[in-house]
Amino acid sequence: MGEAKRNSSSSSSNSDEDIQAQVAKAVEGVKELQESAASFISKTSTDEQALRQRSQSLDSSIRLLRSQLYSLLSSKALDPKLAEKLEEDLQRATCVLADGDAASFLPGKAQGGRFLRMFLGPITVRSSSKDIQLKVKEEYNAYRDRTALLFLLFPATLLILRSWLWDGCLPTFPVQAYQAWLLFLYTGLALRENILRVNGSDIRPWWIYHHYCAMFMALVSLTWEIKGQPDCSQKQRGVQLFLQWAMMQGVAMLLQNRYQRQRLYTRIALGKAKRMDVVWGETAGVDGQLWLLCPILFILQGFEAYVGLQLLKTALVGVASEWQVSFCGVLLVLMAVGNFVNTVQTLMVKSRFKAKMKRTKSKQDL
Amino acid sequence: MGEAKRNSSSSSSNSDEDIQAQVAKAVEGVKELQESAASFISKTSTDEQALRQRSQSLDSSIRLLRSQLYSLLSSKALDPKLAEKLEEDLQRATCVLADGDAASFLPGKAQGGRFLRMFLGPITVRSSSKDIQLKVKEEYNAYRDRTALLFLLFPATLLILRSWLWDGCLPTFPVQAYQAWLLFLYTGLALRENILRVNGSDIRPWWIYHHYCAMFMALVSLTWEIKGQPDCSQKQRGVQLFLQWAMMQGVAMLLQNRYQRQRLYTRIALGKAKRMDVVWGETAGVDGQLWLLCPILFILQGFEAYVGLQLLKTALVGVASEWQVSFCGVLLVLMAVGNFVNTVQTLMVKSRFKAKMKRTKSKQDL
Repeated sequence: MGEAKRNSSSSSSNSDEDIQAQVAKAVEGVKELQESAASFISKTSTDEQALRQRSQSLDSSIRLLRSQLYSLLSSKALDPKLAEKLEEDLQRATCVLADGDAASFLPGKAQGGRFLRMFLGPITVRSSSKDIQLKVKEEYNAYRDRTALLFLLFPATLLILRSWLWDGCLPTFPVQAYQAWLLFLYTGLALRENILRVNGSDIRPWWIYHHYCAMFMALVSLTWEIKGQPDCSQKQRGVQLFLQWAMMQGVAMLLQNRYQRQRLYTRIALGKAKRMDVVWGETAGVDGQLWLLCPILFILQGFEAYVGLQLLKTALVGVASEWQVSFCGVLLVLMAVGNFVNTVQTLMVKSRFKAKMKRTKSKQDL
Repeated sequence: MGEAKRNSSSSSSNSDEDIQAQVAKAVEGVKELQESAASFISKTSTDEQALRQRSQSLDSSIRLLRSQLYSLLSSKALDPKLAEKLEEDLQRATCVLADGDAASFLPGKAQGGRFLRMFLGPITVRSSSKDIQLKVKEEYNAYRDRTALLFLLFPATLLILRSWLWDGCLPTFPVQAYQAWLLFLYTGLALRENILRVNGSDIRPWWIYHHYCAMFMALVSLTWEIKGQPDCSQKQRGVQLFLQWAMMQGVAMLLQNRYQRQRLYTRIALGKAKRMDVVWGETAGVDGQLWLLCPILFILQGFEAYVGLQLLKTALVGVASEWQVSFCGVLLVLMAVGNFVNTVQTLMVKSRFKAKMKRTKSKQDL
């Protein structure tokens, strides 16, 4: 029995020592890891700082050279052919700087912006890894595609059910579910587009403002009471017009997505586009689609303004005198005007670029 | 004139050469920068990978040692005093690992999670810089403070104006503005809390679910028509109860914020807390406040359930038979039950810890 006790006690003290050693080893390991992590972080941040300074000074010197080039060209102190060549060199350098591995060391365009800070706080959503940046962009495109399809199907279903099942009178719940979905959707789009901007995309600010307006409209329309029988076909005229406009929007979004993605791939293949771009003012090989897209966009914008004016009219005539109706009307008209102005501006940039290309070509032919 | 022309031409070719050289230098600079950025990124990611593996293996070996320690202790094969000491060592190592510089190389708890991906897409919101993580946490606390104040003032103003100015009848617009603000607020809180979780905070999941529920309720209440005269004091009974509950919520939030922040500072001072923690199941020095906070929390939860049941009653009796009323009622009851269960669980963890501390102390006294 004495033997047994001794044995157990010795095995116990054995395992005592064993686990003590293991714990000491783990504690030591954590200490070492902490030290190497600290030195890694401080070294990385020093190196990063240096790279950041180099990219910033290069970026500003390229900008300076460009303006010098223009002033030399306009004062005729430089051979136009040489100027063209130098400009191309600078353009290529800018693309490498903005799209290459150095891009993550350039300061972000909007460093978060108020909208993101309002929802997310001061977290950094800029990724220095190109892979993640591209994943964000691809996911944004995929999200837009899914969205466009729902944008078409959701109101279409509502309108079809309205005439087949609901005797020309939309029930409240499905319409409000649709409006809540719109609110969620536009919030998601606005957040994603702000994140894209922080990650270096040059999406036009208007499209983001447009989504802010749309968010507001969805929010306001949620509080807007859907009137039932009697006379609901007259009272619901606004909702009906809005749903029809949303369907057209769906079609236009699908076309736009297709067009932009093709154009982007062409431009990436030509080595000109930064892959983070969403809209860019230049056509390359897909002109045919633009001539289909443009009239559709303009018709859509016209219809948007028409729906807005109709809403204002119903509010003034007094069929639906709630403030929400006039508010949505004003917002729709504003959005239509903004969309129109921005589409025209984009087209003007395109045509200016084309005219320049033609001039270059005819010069080269001479 | 010939002289002048030669001069101008020579100065022009001079500036030609000059700008050519500068452009070439810039292009060269971009090339070099691109190379060093690429090598920096690849080296950093290799080093990071190594650190990540080391922290993960240390993390799992500490976990293993802990479970071994417990099994040795329960089979009485280990001296309790030694076990206590070893457990403390491991606890300290865990804290260093989780709060030190190595923390950013441990895998995130939820890697974004569905909610963040739904709104933001696949962007990383985990920051490896401790400074930013702390800034996020501080900003979250500041946001909660501001929010709590508004939480108190907004409904209080509505209720005061109701009896002074509006003859006991709440107008639609201010109430809906309040509900829209609630929706925005809860969305912001839910996003921030998810971001905190990704950055290593151990906030209880229930509080995030609670904010999802509150988001839903705010959304649904927006579609809920605010009834006017006649009899609006009866029809608006639900809204009124809800506003009273919101005021109490504001007071509780202010107390909770104060309590948690003090507790956190105490714990950080004791070197025990990870600074990213939001709620932690242990008291340290501010027990007095807990005895004030707990009854208030329980009263609040009781009142939340009461408001929910009142809403269900009005829906069943038929004063306001819209589905929104019953939906909000059910949600409020669910939230009250969940809050109660989670508060009790937190208190139980606290008391278990205290009992353990007492046992340790009495052992040491022996």
